[in-house]
Parts: sequence; C-alpha cells; structure tokens
Amino acid sequence: MSSEFGKNIKLSIFGESHGRAIGCVIDGLPSGIKLDMDKIYVDMSRRAPGKDKTSTPRLEKDIPNIISGVLDNVTTGAPLAMVIENTNTQSGDYSNLMTVPRPSHSDYPAYVKYDGNNDIRGGGHFSGRLTAPLVFAGAVAKQVLAQKGITVGAHIAKIGSVQDEMFDKNNITAEQLNKLSAVAFSTISSQAQKKMREVIEEARMKQDSVGGIIECAAIGLPVGLGANIFSTVESQLSSILFGIPAVKGVEFGAGFDFAEMKGSQANDAYCIKNGKVALKTNNNGGVLGGMTSGAPLVVSVAIKPTPSISQPQQSVNLQTMQEETLVIQGRHDPCIVGRAVPVVEAAIAFGLLDMMM
Amino acid sequence: MSSEFGKNIKLSIFGESHGRAIGCVIDGLPSGIKLDMDKIYVDMSRRAPGKDKTSTPRLEKDIPNIISGVLDNVTTGAPLAMVIENTNTQSGDYSNLMTVPRPSHSDYPAYVKYDGNNDIRGGGHFSGRLTAPLVFAGAVAKQVLAQKGITVGAHIAKIGSVQDEMFDKNNITAEQLNKLSAVAFSTISSQAQKKMREVIEEARMKQDSVGGIIECAAIGLPVGLGANIFSTVESQLSSILFGIPAVKGVEFGAGFDFAEMKGSQANDAYCIKNGKVALKTNNNGGVLGGMTSGAPLVVSVAIKPTPSISQPQQSVNLQTMQEETLVIQGRHDPCIVGRAVPVVEAAIAFGLLDMMM
Amino acid sequence: MSSEFGKNIKLSIFGESHGRAIGCVIDGLPSGIKLDMDKIYVDMSRRAPGKDKTSTPRLEKDIPNIISGVLDNVTTGAPLAMVIENTNTQSGDYSNLMTVPRPSHSDYPAYVKYDGNNDIRGGGHFSGRLTAPLVFAGAVAKQVLAQKGITVGAHIAKIGSVQDEMFDKNNITAEQLNKLSAVAFSTISSQAQKKMREVIEEARMKQDSVGGIIECAAIGLPVGLGANIFSTVESQLSSILFGIPAVKGVEFGAGFDFAEMKGSQANDAYCIKNGKVALKTNNNGGVLGGMTSGAPLVVSVAIKPTPSISQPQQSVNLQTMQEETLVIQGRHDPCIVGRAVPVVEAAIAFGLLDMMM
Amino acid sequence: MSSEFGKNIKLSIFGESHGRAIGCVIDGLPSGIKLDMDKIYVDMSRRAPGKDKTSTPRLEKDIPNIISGVLDNVTTGAPLAMVIENTNTQSGDYSNLMTVPRPSHSDYPAYVKYDGNNDIRGGGHFSGRLTAPLVFAGAVAKQVLAQKGITVGAHIAKIGSVQDEMFDKNNITAEQLNKLSAVAFSTISSQAQKKMREVIEEARMKQDSVGGIIECAAIGLPVGLGANIFSTVESQLSSILFGIPAVKGVEFGAGFDFAEMKGSQANDAYCIKNGKVALKTNNNGGVLGGMTSGAPLVVSVAIKPTPSISQPQQSVNLQTMQEETLVIQGRHDPCIVGRAVPVVEAAIAFGLLDMMM
Repeated sequence: MSSEFGKNIKLSIFGESHGRAIGCVIDGLPSGIKLDMDKIYVDMSRRAPGKDKTSTPRLEKDIPNIISGVLDNVTTGAPLAMVIENTNTQSGDYSNLMTVPRPSHSDYPAYVKYDGNNDIRGGGHFSGRLTAPLVFAGAVAKQVLAQKGITVGAHIAKIGSVQDEMFDKNNITAEQLNKLSAVAFSTISSQAQKKMREVIEEARMKQDSVGGIIECAAIGLPVGLGANIFSTVESQLSSILFGIPAVKGVEFGAGFDFAEMKGSQANDAYCIKNGKVALKTNNNGGVLGGMTSGAPLVVSVAIKPTPSISQPQQSVNLQTMQEETLVIQGRHDPCIVGRAVPVVEAAIAFGLLDMMM
Repeated sequence: MSSEFGKNIKLSIFGESHGRAIGCVIDGLPSGIKLDMDKIYVDMSRRAPGKDKTSTPRLEKDIPNIISGVLDNVTTGAPLAMVIENTNTQSGDYSNLMTVPRPSHSDYPAYVKYDGNNDIRGGGHFSGRLTAPLVFAGAVAKQVLAQKGITVGAHIAKIGSVQDEMFDKNNITAEQLNKLSAVAFSTISSQAQKKMREVIEEARMKQDSVGGIIECAAIGLPVGLGANIFSTVESQLSSILFGIPAVKGVEFGAGFDFAEMKGSQANDAYCIKNGKVALKTNNNGGVLGGMTSGAPLVVSVAIKPTPSISQPQQSVNLQTMQEETLVIQGRHDPCIVGRAVPVVEAAIAFGLLDMMM
Repeated sequence: MSSEFGKNIKLSIFGESHGRAIGCVIDGLPSGIKLDMDKIYVDMSRRAPGKDKTSTPRLEKDIPNIISGVLDNVTTGAPLAMVIENTNTQSGDYSNLMTVPRPSHSDYPAYVKYDGNNDIRGGGHFSGRLTAPLVFAGAVAKQVLAQKGITVGAHIAKIGSVQDEMFDKNNITAEQLNKLSAVAFSTISSQAQKKMREVIEEARMKQDSVGGIIECAAIGLPVGLGANIFSTVESQLSSILFGIPAVKGVEFGAGFDFAEMKGSQANDAYCIKNGKVALKTNNNGGVLGGMTSGAPLVVSVAIKPTPSISQPQQSVNLQTMQEETLVIQGRHDPCIVGRAVPVVEAAIAFGLLDMMM
Repeated sequence: MSSEFGKNIKLSIFGESHGRAIGCVIDGLPSGIKLDMDKIYVDMSRRAPGKDKTSTPRLEKDIPNIISGVLDNVTTGAPLAMVIENTNTQSGDYSNLMTVPRPSHSDYPAYVKYDGNNDIRGGGHFSGRLTAPLVFAGAVAKQVLAQKGITVGAHIAKIGSVQDEMFDKNNITAEQLNKLSAVAFSTISSQAQKKMREVIEEARMKQDSVGGIIECAAIGLPVGLGANIFSTVESQLSSILFGIPAVKGVEFGAGFDFAEMKGSQANDAYCIKNGKVALKTNNNGGVLGGMTSGAPLVVSVAIKPTPSISQPQQSVNLQTMQEETLVIQGRHDPCIVGRAVPVVEAAIAFGLLDMMM
C-alpha cells in the first residue's frame, strides 16, 4: 500500500481501524507555525461519528496526540507525528467478512492483493476511520494557509435528489467559508439541510444508504499556482481527493456541465476591477491552463452511498467459491456525506499547501 | 513547469507549439518490447488535425522520430526519446495575444507566473499540440499492455446534448475496444456520430465551439492494481487525465450519478461465473477500495468547449490595464472532443502501465 | 526537514531526542512477512548506548512498539508504524546550547534554517538517537532480504590508526556476516578490537573522541540490481548512508585506492566457476556500471569523531555575536563507531530492499 | 534504467553512444534566465575528447542543440530539451563485445538485466559519452547559481601517485574557481600537472590506464541548505556524483581522514569575522548536520582507471560459457580524470541548484 501524498510536504498516514492506533507523519512543514489546537479539534469533531442520527452511533474519542515536531504549540520544522489510539472497537462484528467480501468495499481486491494477510477488522487500513489523520493534516494545513490569506470551506451540495444552493463561483467570501467550516453537516440553505436529513433518515429506516455531492471552495490563492503538464492544480487536487474512500468523481468549475456548453457561454471574460485583472464569470472554477487564475477555486466531489447496509446482499464465499447471502452486522452510517465535508476540505487544504511550499 | 508523470515509468514531455520541436522521454520502459510503428502512427493520426471539418485545417505531419532507446524496432531498456519537428507554424497570428489574454486559456496565469518569459506563440508549452507526445507514449504503453492481455479503448460519449450509447459497464470486449481505437472520431452509435458532426458544424458556422464527454474503458486488468490511501487507481489516472488541456471533470463508474443512488442500488453484488469470482453489476467502474476489481475499468472525462473562438470577446490589455475587445485570428477547432479520444486512451494506458511496472 | 527515504518502500522517520517519542513509518512493505522480534531487539540493542565504556552511560530502553501494519507478528501490507517513547532525558544539560552552537554539530545551520524554532534539546531531530528507528527499519528489511537469500553484515574497519582485518572482497560467507551482526562492537580480529577499545579509552580519559571506518558487505544479491544513470547501486546506497549523522565518506570496493591503481590491476577479470560466470577479483565492490555484478557488495563508510567532547571549545554566542568558550556538559560517547555498525547495516539493508521491490 | 535526477528541477538524460542522438530534458528551470551559450560550449569542450594525448583521439563535435524551453537565449520556464546528434561512430570496433563482457564495465550485469536487448555499441546508454548532457545541464545550472552569487570549480587532485595542491578548505575564492573551470585538465599546481601528464603518457605507452581523484568546491552558498535526515547535502550530492561512470568514492571535507582524527582536532571552532559567524577551520567541508554551514563546500571524488585497455584480458564467452581472452579494439582514454573534472563540477552544480529551488 502507498499511503503517502505530497511533493513538497509529505503526508504519510498509517493505522488500521481495529489495530492499536492510527496516525500520520507530516514531513516538510515550515518551522515557527503556532498551532491552534482548538481549531484542529473542531475539524476532528466534524468528522467524528455519533453526533446524530445521520451517522454511526460508535463513540470514537479521536484525540490526536502530537508526539514530535511541535514544541510549546509551535512547529519545530522536524516531522510532525500524530497518533490516535484506537479504543472503542468491536472486532467480533466483522468475523464473517474474512471469507465473504462486502459488495462495493475493498474486501475482495484486498484479499487477492494481500493474500489474506491484511487486517480486515473494521476495514483495516481501508477503513473510513483513516480519514481522521487526513482531517488532522488538513486542519494543520488550513492554519498555515490562513497565514497566507487563504480560506477553505465546503458544504453538502446534494444528498439523494436534494440540492443545496451552490456557491456563486465568482463571489465567495472568507466569512461564508469560515461559517461553513465551523459546523458539522454544513449546508448553505437550512431548508435543504432539513430535507437532506429526512432523506437520510428515510434510508436509515429502510436499512439502506444514500450518496451525495460535496462542493468545496478556496479563496485568496495567488495567481499561477500549479504547473503544466502533469502538475496542474486539477491533477494534484484530484489525486488527493480520490484518496478519500467513496469519492468516485471530481470536477472543477462547470465540470461535466461543460459538455453542453458553447465556447461563447463557457469562456470567462476578463475585466478590470479596482485596478486589477478580474474575471466576469468563473466557469473554469479558478483554474486556467492548470494554474490558479485568481478567481475562487471551486471543486465538486461525488460520494457514493455507504456500501455497508444491513439488508441481505449477494456475495461469494472465497474459501468454498460458493455464492452466499451476506448480512452485515455492526453499526454503519446511512450517509457519510456530512462527515466527508471536513475530509474534502482537508484534502484540498493539504493539496494546496503542498503546491505552495 | 513540471511536465513529468509516473512513479515507475517516467514520462517527460517537452516542446512549445511554435518552437523547434516537441517530444518526450519515456524512462523505465522494459527492454525487449517489439514496437509496431504502424499502430503508433494510427494513434498519432487519430489525434492529428485537418482530417475533416470538425477540426482545424492546419497540416501537421507529426512524424515521431525515435532517437534513443530502440534498436531494430525493439526497446533496449534505455530511456526512449522521441522528437517531432515543428514545421507548419504561422506565428504571426498570435502577435496580439502577448498582452491581451485569451479567455479560458492559460495566457493570463502563465503571464503572471512566467513574468512574460514564456513562449506564447500558439500557446507555447500549454498548446494542445503537446498532447501529441502523450499520444505517442500511450501508443507505446498500449503495446506493452497488449502483451499482458490488456486492451484500452474510448469513444465520444457526448457532444453538446447529443449522447452516444454508453458502454455496458460489465460487458465490454477487446473486439469492441479495438474497433473504437482504430478510427478517428469514434462513437458506438453511427447515428449519434452523425448528429454530433451536425452540432459541431453548427458551432463552426456560428464561430463558436462546443464541449463534450469521452468514455474510456480498459479490460484484462489483474485484480488488486492500485493501492490505498493515496495511490488508488482513481488518484493515479485522474492525475494524468487532468494533465490533458480542457479536461475539467473525471468520474469512475456511475460517478456523479452515485449522488442520487441508494446503497442497495449502487452496490455491485458478487457471483460465481465460470468458477471465478465475478460482479453482477459494475457501478464502481472496475475500482473498489482504490484497487482494480477485475471488472472493466470505466472512466468518463469532461472536455470543455475549445476556448479559441472567432467571435469578439472581452479581455484586458495587461500593459495598459484597460479592458479591450479581443478577436482571435488563426485556425481553431470548433470541437476538440474527437481529437481528444486517443489522448484520453493514451493517458489511461500510460497510467495503467505505470501502476503495473 | 525531509526525513523520508525510498522509491518503492518509503521510510519516514520522526521524533526529537527529548520529545515525547521517536519512531518511523515503513510504507510499501510486502504483506505476509513473519517478523522475528527477537532479531529486531538484537539490532536495537547493538546500537543502544550504555553497554560498556566505549559509549555513553545513558540508559535508553528503546523498546519499539509496533502500532500498525503487523497482525500476529505478520505484516499486513498496510504501513508499518513504530514508536519508541522517550523516557530517560535530562534536558537541563543542554540549556546553554540554545545560543552557543557546538562545533561540528548541526546547531548553527539549524539555528539559521529554523529561525530558532527547532527543538535543540539533545540535538532534537538531528540527534544520533534518531538512528534507532533506522536500525529498526533495517532489522525488518534484513528479514525480508533473508527470505531472498541475502545477508548483510558489517564490522569496525578502523578506529584511530588501529586497523581491523578487512573483508576478502571476493570471498565472504553468510556465516561470517551473521557472526558479525550478532554482537556489538563487531570486528573480524579480536586483537584489533582490543586495541581499538584502548584507543577509545585513551580518548575518553583525555575528554576527547575518535573517529573510524566501518566496512559493510552484502551477499546473495541477484545480478543487475540498480540502474543507469542516476539510480545506480552506489547512488542509492550512498544517499541513505549519508543520512547517518557523522558519516563523511562512502566508497565502494577499492574506492579511493583506485586513484593509484592501473587499469590492468584494477579490472576484475571474469572466469567460469561451477558452470557460472564469476569474478576473479572484486575491486569494484560488487557494482559494475551501477549494477550489482554478482560478487559481494562491499562498501566502506567514514565516521567522524563524536563532536561532543568535554574539553572547552571556542564558539560564538548567537545573541550577543561575541566569541565564547563552550564547555559541553552531559554524557557523550568518546567513540560512536561501534554503535554505528548496526546503523550502517540497517541503511544498506533498507537501501537494498528498496531497490529489490 | 532510470536516468532521472532531481526533486525540484528534474534532469532526464537519454541516448546511446552509437544511437542517433543523446541529450537531456531539464524540467523545472526558472523562466527568464539569460543563457550565455559560449560558457556552455567551454564546459562541453573541456569534457570532449581528442584535445591531447591524455584522451581518446575520437572527434566528437558535441554541439548541443536546444529544441525547446529557450526563446531568444532566455529560458521560457517550459522544459528545456537539448539534443546532440551522434556523428562520428565506428560501431564495428565493438562487435565481439556482445558475448564477451569487458572487465570492470557494465557489460555483464547489463547483459543479464536487459536480456541482450540493450544497445552495447560503444557502451550504449552506459557510455561515458552520456556525461555530455550532464555537463550541459551543469553548465546551465552554473549560470543560474552565478546569479545567486555561487561559484563552482574543480581540479584534478591526484592521478596515480601524483598529488596536486589541495584547496585551502576555509579560504577559496571565486577567482580561483573560475580560473580552474575555464580550462581543460585543470590543476592548482602546474608542476603537478606536468607530472600527471607524464604518468598518463606512461600508462598509454603500456596500453594501460590510470585512475585519480577530483576535488571540487562551491562557495557563496547560503547557510542551511539541505535537510535532515535523508535530504542532507551529502546525500543529494553523492547521489548525483555516483551517477558519473567510474566514480567509486565520495567524501566531504576531511572524509576518510576523519578516521584517524581526534574530536579536538576535527571540530571546526566558531569565531566572529567581520561581524559575522565564521568557522576557524573547515574539516567538515562546509556541511554540518547535513546542512551547509556557510564555509566552502569541499568534496572529493575517486575515479577508477579507465576499464578499456588494449592489453589482453581474461573474460568469458556468455554464449559458450567458456573462458576467453579479450582484446579490446578501438580508441580509449588512458585516463579520464581530466575530462571528468567538468562532469564533477556539473553534477555538483546541478545538485546544488536542485536543493536551492
């Protein structure tokens, strides 16, 4: 497995869902950054399960213990290592998964790849729990970015067929983003949020799950970040975003809607605003020729429905090579989209920081 | 700029649209691969402009000259270097672009980033012409993959609102893919192709352009390619795909459609087929937990409309900092989606080969 | 700082001498490797201080806690993370080093580079203590290599002017290497060892320190490991060896002695031995054209004298910018060469494993 | 093969000795650097053979053709690609090497590794001729470094038993380095040079060859370049230096002489000089804790005798598996140390630039 990301700052994530601990090493962080631990806890908490009916009732404490690279809350320049101990795990629930892979999960290809040696309890290293260290790394990255005047924030754009208001791509404020990234299950419209929760509750009652879309923005970026040909902003951000379990699509600006647009509609004209070059529209989502254009970065991410559902599903027994009906025990999120919002923010923040170093 | 891709095989692309030459170095190719140059020329030709009204009337010979790494048509194991000389260039057409950036192009951020030093003639290193070396590298990669029983092919899934038939995600044959990758402007439905050409011709008459979607598949992949967390198949393929100019979205399997799906619909159940583990559906597009599942890899790519249109557009003069109307001279594609099909195939093929080495 | 090594297997080392913990992440280890923890402890113990008068009397327990990537003593394929808690630290000893850099140490450039933010207690991340995780990683690597028939071992070749017997470069056995790597302060000649200990004791009595040379060999390597131009065996091994504090020179085979040799003396002739290609001599130390030749790999490493000595030394006060006499308190090794032997073995073993994956 | 070097600037070298061309791509060079082509030609010429009796009488024109990345002699920021066409090659000379490997050359391991597919004419990709693109890249790097006040220069420290004067490690001037890097076969002492030429001529008359040592220095470096643990200055420079064919040892400052030194002799004391921190000695060769100390960087490199000698040598026939006497035809350098001086300078310059970007 390769659980490392980054060219200039390297993030190495380790751990297995039901092992002794999970954590990460961030190598290449500048020295002298004062960390606000409370802000980090806020992001960790937004991702943590158990806050309401939309997520799994497991209680994870998820307290990040920094064991190197920080002295008196200030980064030393040495690799920052962080560990979260695993405490509340019920491994027994997963006993029959060893030989009967859960549909839409990593189980089957992991079984083939690791020849049965990988830790399958709770999904092992493939568990969504491994996004906790990513959220931590992103929370650290956000604080470094904030010093450079850059703000990142995201909201649930869609769950099922319920659509939130979308960002006005060319007019996004730090205030708006900070408001979104201060709470769990963030949406722009409170009406949409209410309906989304209903859709999730409905899925939960049916022992089913539901997918969604997250829209994330970053403002304050300098012009010219990213580079041709294979280090475009889109290449680097999609690369880290597709590291988040359940992400199956990434688009920038108008994304797939470009297919039905004419050039005359799609092109973002230039104008002069307050004596500076500005864009009149932002269909390109803040990226031109793979580089930041000065307009807000706007990216959308598709999240598939939680694969773990309580309904009986058809699978196969890898030992007997017979078809078998699988009933997944354990506690599962009917929708992970809400919890994935800070994870997407974290991936974008870390990806941007890597490009800026 | 960073125009390198790959962890195990490295592709380094160089050149500027109106400079002396473009080309690439492929470092890490196995020795002993017999290259069929005719197959390479076919792909180069599918990408080349000037074949019909859907593309620019420029004549580019695009003959790839291999200058190292191949002896008697067999790879030596040393870096393979290839050069295409630039012959038919009319630099004069681009003279006013120096100071007035073309909307939706790289011009403005490149101007800021390179402080006016970058070669802007024909888009310089940002030109779509730089996809020629990528097609070459992909054509080489396809031949290595073919020896391992892997086939890659793509078609135009959509132009404007005209939709082609889509792949039956769980039932794709080498024959079908080879047929698609043998011709230019490939579609599954000839009816759809006819309508797409009309949409493009219509855009051309209106001095406009139009975008689209390309769907690409690969079959014959072993189970377990790719790795958690940040080396997922999706991470690595999206990373190279977003290096193709005009690509603004990438999705795997059901992609953004997952948002409206329930887990019970989305999950791909397992079955036993001919004594082997198989999938009953393939909503995940052949990737589970970031690894290949054994089902066909299916990926869709959004292409924005050609930014260069002949209609007057609003821009700014970067010297005088005044708004200015820009009329782009020169010859431009009303739609690049057709020519982008072999480029997408090439990116997928090279990305897969890198993972397999 | 960048404390990562490896292309195929990545080693990320973290920690500061007097911080909460030190450790490492090994990403990319194959799954299914059964680890013999006792063998790992042996190497950790060979490096640990306090065993005799040749090293510092500090007591470090250095117990490696594996917190992920291993289940029931077998690697899972997920990143292996290991943590050693720091227990016995006397930070007070280093209080005046903040502003008065120790000669021949990292203190001054680190002060400039990290602007005073780096943790200077005990050398922080620059401490020789950070070689403990490297020894751990090397001990793991040795066990993977052993399965492939590869053995690594080293001895003290020189301390001061006392010379050990050197390897017979073309005739090294696994038995010999295993014997060397089973004990601390390993030498081929027990006579030489006795004299070396005297030289060290003499230096200790004079509050001085002494340097040396370590010779390391690896046998059982396949022919053709390493690659031209910039991935030669020498490039990759020197790169990790120069990550060991105090290493100031690396040579392969005859190394610097080649300067005075004629080609007719230096060239290693080929012969047929037991029906196989063999070398009659091994001046090239097992590497030809940057690739392994099948002969034993032989590398020598120069270690400078421990910079921390108790004698008064001339330094400067970085606050007042006045010259100042420095007396280093604390407990220091009069010679680190003996403790560095398993570190050199570890670096070679990890470097070789990275090339083999 | 992997012929790429660099983290921030990437150098990709391609070509085979008797193929169509050799060359390189430099990816990541800053834009706006004005190149003085004459200075580049000087370095190319210093490396080129045929200037006197110390080197091979082959005539290579070695004219570097820049085909991208430079416009009107100024770098554009796009990858700089350079090609040198191979013209004067006599492949016939190497015909019997296919099956009978030359001692001390890459032939045998390359045969095993590439299964007979590699281009063996003239050494193919392993040829010393491939150092021409490295010298080019280094010459470009030197010009970028010069703008930052950094100067690099080297001399022949030793050939056979003839020793040149060595650098006064703590007192090296730009004038001295520029003088050395302006000429071929540079030494500090003209007396030593005369004797070295005699030693080489003597070897030539005996159809033999001779090795040597090159000492290189760089001044003007900022304090704090390089990083712990595995990105030390020594790691990065040794890594590129060991990419030069025939290099078998690398040492910094006192290097292997540290073995016989006491800490009290070896430690470089600090002082205040002109109001700044300075070093009283420079045994560490300008590197402390893996970082530049502000003192001159001083590195020595061991070069083995040219393996190609005209004397009959014992080898084996890889087809018949019989021992066989080999007589190497063709034109060969009795000593490559002189020609390697600009290569070592180039490697150091490129390595330093990579660290500075």
